[in-house]
Amino acid sequence: MKCSVFIATSADGFIAKNDGGVDWLHTSGNPDAQMADQADMGMGVYMASVDCMIMGRNCMEMIDGMNLTDEQWPYGNTRIFVLSNTVKEAPSGLKGKVEMFSGEIKTLIARLEGEGYQHAYVDGGKTIQAFINLGLINEMTITRAPVLLGEGKSLFGKTHKDIKLVNARATAFANDFIQEHYTVTYT
Amino acid sequence: MKCSVFIATSADGFIAKNDGGVDWLHTSGNPDAQMADQADMGMGVYMASVDCMIMGRNCMEMIDGMNLTDEQWPYGNTRIFVLSNTVKEAPSGLKGKVEMFSGEIKTLIARLEGEGYQHAYVDGGKTIQAFINLGLINEMTITRAPVLLGEGKSLFGKTHKDIKLVNARATAFANDFIQEHYTVTYT
Repeated sequence: MKCSVFIATSADGFIAKNDGGVDWLHTSGNPDAQMADQADMGMGVYMASVDCMIMGRNCMEMIDGMNLTDEQWPYGNTRIFVLSNTVKEAPSGLKGKVEMFSGEIKTLIARLEGEGYQHAYVDGGKTIQAFINLGLINEMTITRAPVLLGEGKSLFGKTHKDIKLVNARATAFANDFIQEHYTVTYT
Repeated sequence: MKCSVFIATSADGFIAKNDGGVDWLHTSGNPDAQMADQADMGMGVYMASVDCMIMGRNCMEMIDGMNLTDEQWPYGNTRIFVLSNTVKEAPSGLKGKVEMFSGEIKTLIARLEGEGYQHAYVDGGKTIQAFINLGLINEMTITRAPVLLGEGKSLFGKTHKDIKLVNARATAFANDFIQEHYTVTYT
């Protein structure tokens, strides 16, 4: 199964402030920019390419904290699994929207493959790091907000070895966000 | 005086491994790519735009360790100042090529402005971080090598506040390096 990442970071590589805050993401960049058909910076096309989603507990709790209405829910009907070995039940605000999974990542991948899923959207810093160290992330799209935060929760973490990226593509949007796309190799 | 940055990092934001090593930079990317007139990824045009250079001691020692011949020296006749409050003399390999400076960054900038310099190339992680926190870096060109190192010496460090970037531009080169350009604002 293909696993990919589609995530926003600061220009210095953070996905959230130390307290989990992502307000900086929504206030970054030029709000008056004419984005034309790039207003969602590729999110719609990306979501249409995946058939399931795997995220970490922190990521789930951040989404739960947003108290999104059904209209605001950005993941459509995509089936979502949340990795946690401690939290066994989805919070009330996400009941029916996410399924908890406890156990090995490779077990979950095997199960999803057995059910016919072909492309997972992997989200959350620690989850992405774990997937990279298992050699499971195939592609990454990183959208860098035009701001330096100085500190926070990093997208990337320690790796077992240097990880080579290929097929680099880059787009600077009119709002000053820069999107990078890579294929990840593990040889 | 305008101050700018032109530096290479890994895709996860490191300028060197923890031991100072930068071998990964030279082995990253596709060596067979046809780079045409982009072989230096903009370094020549950038060097032609600066009239002096300010670097930290670590950066100087890394360059000294490369034992560059005059033909390999990448900075031409650009006047180079090295910031250090402990090392008072340039190492023998860099005698005549760099001048040591001990004291406040703003004192050096005032002196260079008094001598008519107009655009400084600022290099080295800690030096760049110090300049950013003094509100002195005006533009940054960051060239990201297509590799995740997992750990090392970060380009960026803590900031006094969020630093807003504007005028984003991005180029993906044929060798899979991605170059980002920003103007830095401090308001």
